[in-house]
Parts: sequence; C-alpha cells; structure tokens
Amino acid sequence: MTKVALTPLAQSLPASVPFVGPEAQERAQGFPFKARLGANESTFGPSPKAIAAMQKAASEVWMYGDPESHDLRQALAAHHQIAPENIMIGEGIDTLLGVLVRLYVTAGDAVVTSAGAYPTFNYHVAGFGGTLHTVPYKNDHEDPDALIAKAREVGAKLIYIANPDNPMGTWHNAARMQQMIDAVPAGCLLVLDEAYIELAPEGTAPAINTSADNVIRMRTFSKAHGMAGARVGYAIGAPDIIQGFNKVRNHFGMSRISQAGALAALRDDGWLGHIREEVSKSRERIIQIAAENGLQTLPSATNFVAIDCGRNGDFASRVLANLITAGVFVRMPFVAPQNRCIRISCGTAAQMDIFAAALPGALQAAHDNLG
Amino acid sequence: MTKVALTPLAQSLPASVPFVGPEAQERAQGFPFKARLGANESTFGPSPKAIAAMQKAASEVWMYGDPESHDLRQALAAHHQIAPENIMIGEGIDTLLGVLVRLYVTAGDAVVTSAGAYPTFNYHVAGFGGTLHTVPYKNDHEDPDALIAKAREVGAKLIYIANPDNPMGTWHNAARMQQMIDAVPAGCLLVLDEAYIELAPEGTAPAINTSADNVIRMRTFSKAHGMAGARVGYAIGAPDIIQGFNKVRNHFGMSRISQAGALAALRDDGWLGHIREEVSKSRERIIQIAAENGLQTLPSATNFVAIDCGRNGDFASRVLANLITAGVFVRMPFVAPQNRCIRISCGTAAQMDIFAAALPGALQAAHDNLG
Repeated sequence: MTKVALTPLAQSLPASVPFVGPEAQERAQGFPFKARLGANESTFGPSPKAIAAMQKAASEVWMYGDPESHDLRQALAAHHQIAPENIMIGEGIDTLLGVLVRLYVTAGDAVVTSAGAYPTFNYHVAGFGGTLHTVPYKNDHEDPDALIAKAREVGAKLIYIANPDNPMGTWHNAARMQQMIDAVPAGCLLVLDEAYIELAPEGTAPAINTSADNVIRMRTFSKAHGMAGARVGYAIGAPDIIQGFNKVRNHFGMSRISQAGALAALRDDGWLGHIREEVSKSRERIIQIAAENGLQTLPSATNFVAIDCGRNGDFASRVLANLITAGVFVRMPFVAPQNRCIRISCGTAAQMDIFAAALPGALQAAHDNLG
Repeated sequence: MTKVALTPLAQSLPASVPFVGPEAQERAQGFPFKARLGANESTFGPSPKAIAAMQKAASEVWMYGDPESHDLRQALAAHHQIAPENIMIGEGIDTLLGVLVRLYVTAGDAVVTSAGAYPTFNYHVAGFGGTLHTVPYKNDHEDPDALIAKAREVGAKLIYIANPDNPMGTWHNAARMQQMIDAVPAGCLLVLDEAYIELAPEGTAPAINTSADNVIRMRTFSKAHGMAGARVGYAIGAPDIIQGFNKVRNHFGMSRISQAGALAALRDDGWLGHIREEVSKSRERIIQIAAENGLQTLPSATNFVAIDCGRNGDFASRVLANLITAGVFVRMPFVAPQNRCIRISCGTAAQMDIFAAALPGALQAAHDNLG
C-alpha cells in the first residue's frame, strides 16, 4: 500500500525543533542539573497570587478556557491603556510568531532577521516556506539600519528584531526603535519581540501606536512574570492586524489555568517590582563573578547576562560543556563573534553560588584543553 | 504607506472561528448559565489526584514544560502497551488536527469528512487550502463505506471520522472500524478521532496496530478525564507519521501544569471507572427526561445524548433558544436531518435537575411559536 505523502514543503523540512529542553539534556547526560540558568526562566518564581489563582483554577479545569481570553485581554488593554481589539493572546510568543508567519509568509516570500537571533522565528519561516535573509550583529547589538536596508533590498514581508535582544541582552532606546518603526518599507511588517521589556530601563519601549500598521509587538508572561511553563504571550497591534489571527488561530485557545494565572500576575505590580530588584541584583552578581574570573560581561536589559569568555567560539563552547558537566545548565549564542560568550540567566543567590563555584574550574579545564 | 499583505490563502479566509465558548454567549446575553451542558465537558470534574498534581505544578511554573512531554509519553505508551515513538502529545486534539492537516494538505488537496461532523477539522482544512468533500450521515451514524468511496472518487489525502461520533453520539464497533481502516485507499490517511472512546462500550476501539501507515488516532484528556481546560490530547500512529509532527509542532510545547495533571489523571484508573458510572447514570437520566416530554433519544457511547425533538431543524433550534434563555447551555447538530436533535452533555444530578425543569417550557414555547 502506498503511504500518504507529506506536502512538498513538509517533505523538505527536518524532523527537529530548535528548542531542546533542560529535561532532555538531563535524560541524555544521566544526572539532573544543580542550577537551571540556561533558558532565561525566572528562578524567583511567579507571583504568589498567580500561583494561588492557578491552584484555584485547577479544580475548574473540566471547563474549556474562554477561547476569547476575554478577561485577560480586557485587563491587558487597561494595563496598556489600549483597546482589547489591539491584543491577541496566544500560547506564548512562539505560537503567536508561528501564526503570524503563517498569515503573511508563503513559498518564497522574503523575511529578514539578524544572524544568531531567535531561532524559533526562523523555524516558523522555514515551516511556511519563506526565505530567510540575515544581517550581522553590530557591536553585539542588533542593527536596525542593516535590517531595514536588507528588507528594502529583498522586498521582505517581515522583519524580526528583539529589543532587548536575546541572546546578547543588549538593547536600543525607544527613540532608536521608533526611528526603525518609521523606516519600515511599504508592504513590510516589523515584528518587535519585547519578551524582556519589563526588565529593561524606562525609555526602552517606544510608545504604543494603536493604529500603526507597520509593527506588531510581542509580549510574554514567561520572563519577568515567571510563568514560562504556563505558555501565555500576547501580541499588540492595529485592530485589523490582530483580527487576522482569528483566521487561523487555535480557537479552543488557552489553558484555563494559564489564563487565570496571567490575570493574577498582571494585577500584582508589587511582585513585578520585586522581580526587577532581584534581577538587577543577580545581574550585578553575574558581573562580579565574571570579574573574579577575569572576564568581561555585556550590558544587559534582560534577566540574563552574556559573559565574554575572551576567546573564540570553540573556547566558549568548552567552558559551556564544562559547566554542564558540573551540573550548571547554561547556553551560548550560536553565531561568531557573539559565540565567544556564554549566556547566564539571572537566578536566586543559591543558584548564583552554584554558578560561582563551577565557573573557575570550567574555565581552567577549557584552558587546559587548549593544550 | 502600503500595508503588508496577507498571503492569498489567508486573505481568502474569514476572520472567525468555529467554537464560540459559553462565556462569550454569557457576555452577549448578559446573564450566566445555570447549567453548562453544551460543550461535552465533564461536570463531574477531573480526578482529585490530577487536581492535586496541577496545584503542585503551579508553583513550579517558572520552568518551561518539558517540550518532549517525556514522562507523559512514557506513561501513555505503557498504558497502551505501545512505544513512546507511537505517541505525539499536543494542546488538545484540535491542535494536533491542525498540525496533521498542515503536514499533509496543501492547496487543492482533497479531504473527506461527513456533512455535519466536527467543524474544527474543516476549519483546519480550509486554513491550509484543502478542498473538503462530504458525505451524508446514514441513519444518524457516520457512514464508513460512503467515506471510503468518496475518498477513492476524489483521491483524498485524509478521511476524518469520529468513533464514537460527535455530535450524534452514535458509534460503530471495532470490527466495523477495522474493516474501514483496511479499506483506506493508497495514498490516503484515516484520521480516527476517538475523543470519547473511554466512555464507549468494550469492543468499540479496534486494536492498535503500531506500524499501520494508513491510520492516525486521536485521544484526549478533555472528555472522560475531565480536563478540557488543560488542553492535552495525543495522537497514536506509526513512528514515521508521529515523527512528522516534529517538523512543525510548537516545540516549546505543553503547559507544565497540564502535563502534570494528565500524568496523574492517567494513573487514576479508579476515577475513570467512577466517571464511566456517572456518565452512564446521566445518560439514563437524559433518556428519562426526554421520555417524560414525549421525546426519543439516540443511542450514545459518549458523555452526551442527542434528543430528537421530533420535528425539523427550525423547531429544534427554537427549543435550543428557549433552553438558552432559561439559562441552560446546550447545543445542536448543524446539518439536516440531524439538526432535528439537540445535544445534551451528561452532568451531575443537580445539572440534570436544571435541565429537566427547563425542558417542558422550552418545548411548549417552541410549539406555541409554530402558531
């Protein structure tokens, strides 16, 4: 019997995904991590009010979650002083990026991003047959001018930029980002990923223009709000761009528990302030640990810090491997010259202590390996 | 400035989704439902052990869920006595159906289903540009022979059938389904939706053949397990069909809380037995309520019962509207002649009492409306 055939596009795709979880690494290596500092999760945890709301919702989970996420959208609209029609909720920025690419990108359409930027976006572009064009980082920052120029050159439908950036942690200020938005070519949409924006200095996010049809912004409860495992993100954009998601989104929508948790987290401003302080302290601690080992760090407006290991990608990947072997889960940028760095998520003092204890040996062993 | 253009396919799609939640109806009508019997949710709730597991996981939600859903896959494999490579976890059957259609259906590909069957499947087929071909129900059952014949006629890539069926509740036995599987044409895949299988009589599910490349089966924790709001479903199929999902699935995967809940639910056989008894009692009660009002019911192997209102779709839709007005959330099949029925989800004795109290008036008012 002849088997059913995948579509030509599906046939062309590898059966692999860009995100390998720490649990998969733990299973492969046969021991658990002592410190979990590789996925920019918030080891400080979510708001206790969010935990309580999720625990309450657990007993109501026989009901589907509201597929319109009405209450959460209303609350987010009030929070941002915009309309619910400017907001689409989804199962994390990742899912929203997938839906967005599906709506705008078909076979051969050009898309622009930075070499070494968020791989999940690239995964979606490939998954819908788009053609990815990249520009390099500039001084360890994403380069708005180069992204715009490339988009003009190739007639891109989408440009992706994260501000603050992952994996480097660097950022541009609001004026610079507004300048970029204003320069988006006709027929193109800027995807502005602001996953870490709550942890950035005041003046990093440009004002929200609720009618701008050349930018869509992505936010999440996974980072500052400490709810990565709940899968809640949202897009902010002009009403007709947002309305487009209703053409193809998973209309059974969101987990009921996740919706309840996000709503409670949003209302707990005090916890967010607490997290900002903890993240700030932890960034300082990472800088200090690096300095104690003779290493520089990159400036960060996020809940992680890139440590420059001072040599090339080979050396940094040895440091990384040694940290992993020591039970410290961390990651590194993929592309030279940014791959001279390792990326350390902020964490509790206890997590930082484990990292501080492991780093000197990891560096020494990497040096020794050089022969 | 010229706005970015949706793909031609996206432009062709309406900005609407097939599932409108009861909360949306409540907001529109301005009052809450007294009984929630319209979405085949399990008002009996999930296993208390599943609730406890989800409550524990809530405090760990700062961590991403394992994107491989390893523990749940292992447990499901053991439960079904198959390999983890035969199982793909997803955010409900709905999401899995969407990924499946994406993998196999592109512009103009033919797909076959029954007129009046699960609309979410049709939504995904439209969303990826497929062409839907339908056959009618036969005696209020899905018609395997007609589905197979239509698939041969149009060269379908996918055939969809639910066994037991939603919205009618009727079913075929395992031998009949195996006969259908054996008749699937070359180059075609049968999508066998078994969302309600745990509530059906022994002998409804054909044996799982872990190497069959002409069928993929869909299961869920939303129905018998009472976890609709957690969004956990799974597909069972040959390893290379399952592996295909890794080409395009949302690799950040599942809610951590949902994974924990599903794992605990799967292990609580006692609760599933309790639910089977409750559902069976409730089906009898719905039959009795119908009889008290002079109405027949259809046989059901699910957690809902279709009540034949004894006239046409217009009449049934009046009965439905009257029930809604009385605060009873119920739904009805979309297509004649099945739309002579209303579909009542099983529920607790208290929910059944509310329905029993509302039905006579709803019928009387519908009769009066006929003039």
